[in-house]
Amino acid sequence: MLEPNALPTDETLDPQDWEPLRQLGYRMVDDMLAYLENVRARPVWQPAPDQVKTHFNQPVPLDPQTPEEVYDDFLENVLPYPIGNIHPRFWGWVFGTGTAFGALADFLAASMNTNSGDFDHHSAIHVEKQVIDWCKEMLGFPPSASGLLTSGCSVANLIGLAVARNAKCGFDLRREGNQGAPHRMVLYVSQQIHSSIQKSVELLGLGSDSIRYIPTNQNYQIDLDALKMAITKDRKEGLLPFCIVGAAGTVNTGAIDDLEALADICERENLWLHVDGAFGVWAALTPTASHLVKGMDRADSLAFDFHKWMYIPYEIGCVLVRHADLHYKTFSLTPEYLTRADQGRGISGGSDLPWYTDYDFHLSRGFRSLKVWMSLKQHGARKYGRMIQQNIDQARYLAGLIEAAPELMLAAPVPLNVVCFRYTRPDLDDKALDILNKEILVELQETGIAVLSGTTLNGRYVLRAALTNHRSRRADFDLLVSEVIRIGKQLGS
Amino acid sequence: MLEPNALPTDETLDPQDWEPLRQLGYRMVDDMLAYLENVRARPVWQPAPDQVKTHFNQPVPLDPQTPEEVYDDFLENVLPYPIGNIHPRFWGWVFGTGTAFGALADFLAASMNTNSGDFDHHSAIHVEKQVIDWCKEMLGFPPSASGLLTSGCSVANLIGLAVARNAKCGFDLRREGNQGAPHRMVLYVSQQIHSSIQKSVELLGLGSDSIRYIPTNQNYQIDLDALKMAITKDRKEGLLPFCIVGAAGTVNTGAIDDLEALADICERENLWLHVDGAFGVWAALTPTASHLVKGMDRADSLAFDFHKWMYIPYEIGCVLVRHADLHYKTFSLTPEYLTRADQGRGISGGSDLPWYTDYDFHLSRGFRSLKVWMSLKQHGARKYGRMIQQNIDQARYLAGLIEAAPELMLAAPVPLNVVCFRYTRPDLDDKALDILNKEILVELQETGIAVLSGTTLNGRYVLRAALTNHRSRRADFDLLVSEVIRIGKQLGS
Repeated sequence: MLEPNALPTDETLDPQDWEPLRQLGYRMVDDMLAYLENVRARPVWQPAPDQVKTHFNQPVPLDPQTPEEVYDDFLENVLPYPIGNIHPRFWGWVFGTGTAFGALADFLAASMNTNSGDFDHHSAIHVEKQVIDWCKEMLGFPPSASGLLTSGCSVANLIGLAVARNAKCGFDLRREGNQGAPHRMVLYVSQQIHSSIQKSVELLGLGSDSIRYIPTNQNYQIDLDALKMAITKDRKEGLLPFCIVGAAGTVNTGAIDDLEALADICERENLWLHVDGAFGVWAALTPTASHLVKGMDRADSLAFDFHKWMYIPYEIGCVLVRHADLHYKTFSLTPEYLTRADQGRGISGGSDLPWYTDYDFHLSRGFRSLKVWMSLKQHGARKYGRMIQQNIDQARYLAGLIEAAPELMLAAPVPLNVVCFRYTRPDLDDKALDILNKEILVELQETGIAVLSGTTLNGRYVLRAALTNHRSRRADFDLLVSEVIRIGKQLGS
Repeated sequence: MLEPNALPTDETLDPQDWEPLRQLGYRMVDDMLAYLENVRARPVWQPAPDQVKTHFNQPVPLDPQTPEEVYDDFLENVLPYPIGNIHPRFWGWVFGTGTAFGALADFLAASMNTNSGDFDHHSAIHVEKQVIDWCKEMLGFPPSASGLLTSGCSVANLIGLAVARNAKCGFDLRREGNQGAPHRMVLYVSQQIHSSIQKSVELLGLGSDSIRYIPTNQNYQIDLDALKMAITKDRKEGLLPFCIVGAAGTVNTGAIDDLEALADICERENLWLHVDGAFGVWAALTPTASHLVKGMDRADSLAFDFHKWMYIPYEIGCVLVRHADLHYKTFSLTPEYLTRADQGRGISGGSDLPWYTDYDFHLSRGFRSLKVWMSLKQHGARKYGRMIQQNIDQARYLAGLIEAAPELMLAAPVPLNVVCFRYTRPDLDDKALDILNKEILVELQETGIAVLSGTTLNGRYVLRAALTNHRSRRADFDLLVSEVIRIGKQLGS
């Protein structure tokens, strides 16, 4: 077989000479690793100046630039102005930290540029399958469960709820749509549930009217009595309760619902149990907090992220579904051009592995499993358990510092890795304290000392630190507390 | 401000010594660039052997391995068994090719590990905004349109149809759900439309009963008369027609619907025009095919990929929505912990930029815009136009070879970059030819010469080459044709 030579007219996006790109690649490795190694020395966050913002108002480039010129542009205008979540003192919202090795794995995946949607005779599918198997093993799901790597927990929640909807509606919803529903389907969540649940419910055409937001107890867990009463009431009114969504790690306070109790209720009431475990599921790997997620292994579907508390670079989450056939029935749709080869040979010759498009609404799927596979092999699950435990211990440490400081007040229990607190002064009322704490938050960010976020608990504005950061040290929390007090005094005077 | 030192007890996932990881990074750059430079010398595809498959059946690793050991595992078990889409003679389905520079950009993005969901004072948001602005410019959408980068066209279609559903239903569907629909909402697509449309419609709770699959003309374009009749019939039956989905590049044959005519019908009938332009939209950049997508700029929403015909590594697509407010109203949902800061300062101090979570169902969003931004700057839009034109010219060239070969028969018109053909022999009937062509397809794959896919057109099984490959040369198609004939003769005897 003769390898065709290029005609002078054949163009390509590959470089003619690969050596300069190789040299640029080395520079990128140098720069990125130095960027990560020295992250602690930089401010957590600094706003992009106006000239940088206006830099991004140019018309589409028509003519080429060298890769080096493009990279210089990146170095000047993009790299210096991150949102800051890789910094040791970024504890805002629930962002992940990432690792250098994870980023290199993403480079390998993008170089292979594999589409992991279909076919099972290529390595990416086996890597994804193994990562999903490891998740089942770590989180107590049976080997017969199905699983899917997703862009994150929003999609994992969406998929879990789609399977729940179709499995519990009692008719062929894929064909007929929700219009065919004889009764409104309703689901139950706590008032502390993540907004991605409502987004999913709206997207699925169930309507937010279908969500019963159940109050929480003093630990911000769903109130079980209120939940049971709501189910009974809805049944009496002729509605169709179909699902409870348990939270394993709420965004506001890190609360974990009583999942064992929710599983009992679901069993008794014939409801689907979906657990939104975006970050909280990983408590399962720790010695002191694994009991908090007891019952999670009884969920019908379990959604979680790797890019938060497993410190893997964005984007990657996962959904596990106990009954693989229900998952398959919700999404499988095989067009003519994707039928499996009759012969059992060739790329589309089926074997025993699932095709992930049968479990997904994505048809093209990148190779996001690689960074998890490589990272879990690099560190081992035990190390992840220790890192997660370290964040939990740090949260308790921070809570202790807050309780010891007369100027500060802990605003919620700290079951896991989220600490809500408030700067206080006896001469200021609640409203004035709301304003002062907002100012402290902004000042911490603007000075680049630390990034927290704020939220409202029981009507009061509080500062909030969510610890999903493998770079934080104990002493970072000493600094946080002393700076909050310093800024509070300064602003309050 | 004193920088905290690490306690001996502080653990991290960062290396203690960065130098070995730097060295490993160089090796990865060397290996990946060589892998891409030499891709032509390897078989397009080879199945992973059994011992490789069983390698991926290990329990979760508990203990650490060195990064070098993990990388060796990758080199041995993952890298040699790709699905093949980066190879110059991979023309199966519609897969993208990617580039080395795009993969390096993904490494930069993963190193920064930015979450591009919210806030506008960091560079990733500005990069995404610029990429979306460039898309509007290249594809003729007004600057006032909204846009969003997605994982691919499946999600872009889903978002476009979600906005269409909510905008056209006539009631508050986000709140009430489809149950609230007084009439079944129906939408119109050609029988050649991509399966992601049906997946979206099912996910949205509309039900596949809501899809009217309209026959196509001899060019595989939606039949306009049949379409108009279907709309009239549905209106008479009290249903609510709400949307037409036009195809810009069907998977089977690359057909592009008459988008100008569809836009006229939508205007007259007050319907939403969504265009699924996964790969076909990019014909807009070419001198000879841009007229085929005329009318696309009149769509209400336009969905397309970068990871197919723009040769960007997976995953990246985009949706543009003409009326930004309708897009916003479909997805915006601001929980307490994501409210913009009152002060206009700090990370969550709003300015004039959109927060992409207000236009998306994803809350966490990676930094996928960077690889497009860097690639478009590197090559310039004109070069992309030439590459896309080259694939179109190659498709015509291949069609010419097929028409000149007595053993081969062109099975469909070749308007764009997809060529469907069939090996024939006068002594074999249609059924025997179906079997023979399936065997040819598998043989081409198994020998590693080329990867095509197959499909069924007018009841006949045909071979199908989809050209979204910047590495293909003219001579690769000479080889394809001669090998198909050789294998056909060999198998047929």
